[in-house]
Amino acid sequence: MSAALQDPCAPVVSGLQTQYVLRLGDACLIHGQRLAQWCGHAPVLEEDIALTNIALDHIGQARALLALAGQMQGLGRDEDALAYLRDEHEYHNVTMLELPNGDFARTVLRGFLWSSFMLKLWQALVDSNHAQLAAIAAKSLKECRYHQRHTADWVVRLGDGTEESARRMGEALALLWPYTAEWFADDEIDAQAEASGIGPAWSSLQAPWRAEVDPVLAEASLTPLAQDFNYGPFRSTGKRGVHSEHMGFLLAQMQSLPRAFPGAVW
Amino acid sequence: MSAALQDPCAPVVSGLQTQYVLRLGDACLIHGQRLAQWCGHAPVLEEDIALTNIALDHIGQARALLALAGQMQGLGRDEDALAYLRDEHEYHNVTMLELPNGDFARTVLRGFLWSSFMLKLWQALVDSNHAQLAAIAAKSLKECRYHQRHTADWVVRLGDGTEESARRMGEALALLWPYTAEWFADDEIDAQAEASGIGPAWSSLQAPWRAEVDPVLAEASLTPLAQDFNYGPFRSTGKRGVHSEHMGFLLAQMQSLPRAFPGAVW
Repeated sequence: MSAALQDPCAPVVSGLQTQYVLRLGDACLIHGQRLAQWCGHAPVLEEDIALTNIALDHIGQARALLALAGQMQGLGRDEDALAYLRDEHEYHNVTMLELPNGDFARTVLRGFLWSSFMLKLWQALVDSNHAQLAAIAAKSLKECRYHQRHTADWVVRLGDGTEESARRMGEALALLWPYTAEWFADDEIDAQAEASGIGPAWSSLQAPWRAEVDPVLAEASLTPLAQDFNYGPFRSTGKRGVHSEHMGFLLAQMQSLPRAFPGAVW
Repeated sequence: MSAALQDPCAPVVSGLQTQYVLRLGDACLIHGQRLAQWCGHAPVLEEDIALTNIALDHIGQARALLALAGQMQGLGRDEDALAYLRDEHEYHNVTMLELPNGDFARTVLRGFLWSSFMLKLWQALVDSNHAQLAAIAAKSLKECRYHQRHTADWVVRLGDGTEESARRMGEALALLWPYTAEWFADDEIDAQAEASGIGPAWSSLQAPWRAEVDPVLAEASLTPLAQDFNYGPFRSTGKRGVHSEHMGFLLAQMQSLPRAFPGAVW
């Protein structure tokens, strides 16, 4: 925690580009927080350590991105204030990442779906005209490649495994898939990012993401429940700050220490 | 929430009598918090409303007791500050009450064991030489009688019910029973309370409590796992401020709103 605290109730005033970065930073933060909850609970020790390391990678990415967001619009709030002292509606992560971990199958599939998306996004952001964002992307891309391979291995192993593991992966896919629709529903933030050259509109990543995801799901013998993976009417809205009922509980836990000890430093 | 806030990091300095009241107040608060988590989740609507009402009774008792504790030693902290701005080690509730709810059987059995104890304690406290505490006891005793009867009915219905309900009650009893040992392990706070006439040492309630509890367990066909209900070496220590791993998560959730909006009022 930084010792310099701002008013936690002040709204995050920022431009569209800053929100583009916040969507990324919050996704890394919330994904990392959920993964960290596995620490000490994974089915095998090696996987416990792997999940914790992946969580730490995401916290590191979140720190870099939130620090950048804090600078971009002169928000006057450092990465700690942004991570710990915002209210729920000020977080811009996609909804899927805040859902409870569920079982190991669900955690692994979520990690695979999301890291496959981030793989494509980081690859594009390496060419961002924003030098700092491009530098963060270059570093994160290496980590993300490992996350994507690691989770893809598990998706195949469990999907093409026992009857029970296949059943669980099927349930996880049925739950999670509809939440991916949100990622590709562009809005003015995507338009501005693309126009300014800071990064791609997320919808442009849908086809490359499917090219990454589909072969692995096929190898895992995972049959999509929804015909041809089309999306129904449900759209989650986390990246616009409207979250599921799980987000408040996640934040209560994540923020409890900095809220209880304002301005505390290690 | 009160608008007048004190330093949340300041230790609660208090005498032994105040701690006696804090043990009571914190027990009501934490028991109420756990019961409130059932709101919207109980197996039938009527029981949902009953559990929520019982939770509210406990929050009301906690409010009266914490307000009294705040006055007794001139702590300068009102009931809101005591409820929401203390750290984990400053809470003096017995450990059983902070354990996760588990299933309905466990919740009901915990409520029964604890309300049977409180029945005896409130009955004694009606004669406290501390007028305010005696007044709180007189009011709370009426509520407690209802709580005890209501949960005793459920203990019998489930314990002497189906194979599945009996199995669950048996598991709940095996889990919860060892935690009751803490209630009857007296310390200097009990000694001082008894000597000063503010209230009984808790150990003096063990026999009356067993006289209340045993016939109901027998009617419920619940066979104690531990021979003759003797206690093993395990002793929980919540009333001394040393809590289980569940307490921090409970407080993170319970305190999140007052921590996020310091000084907020409705």
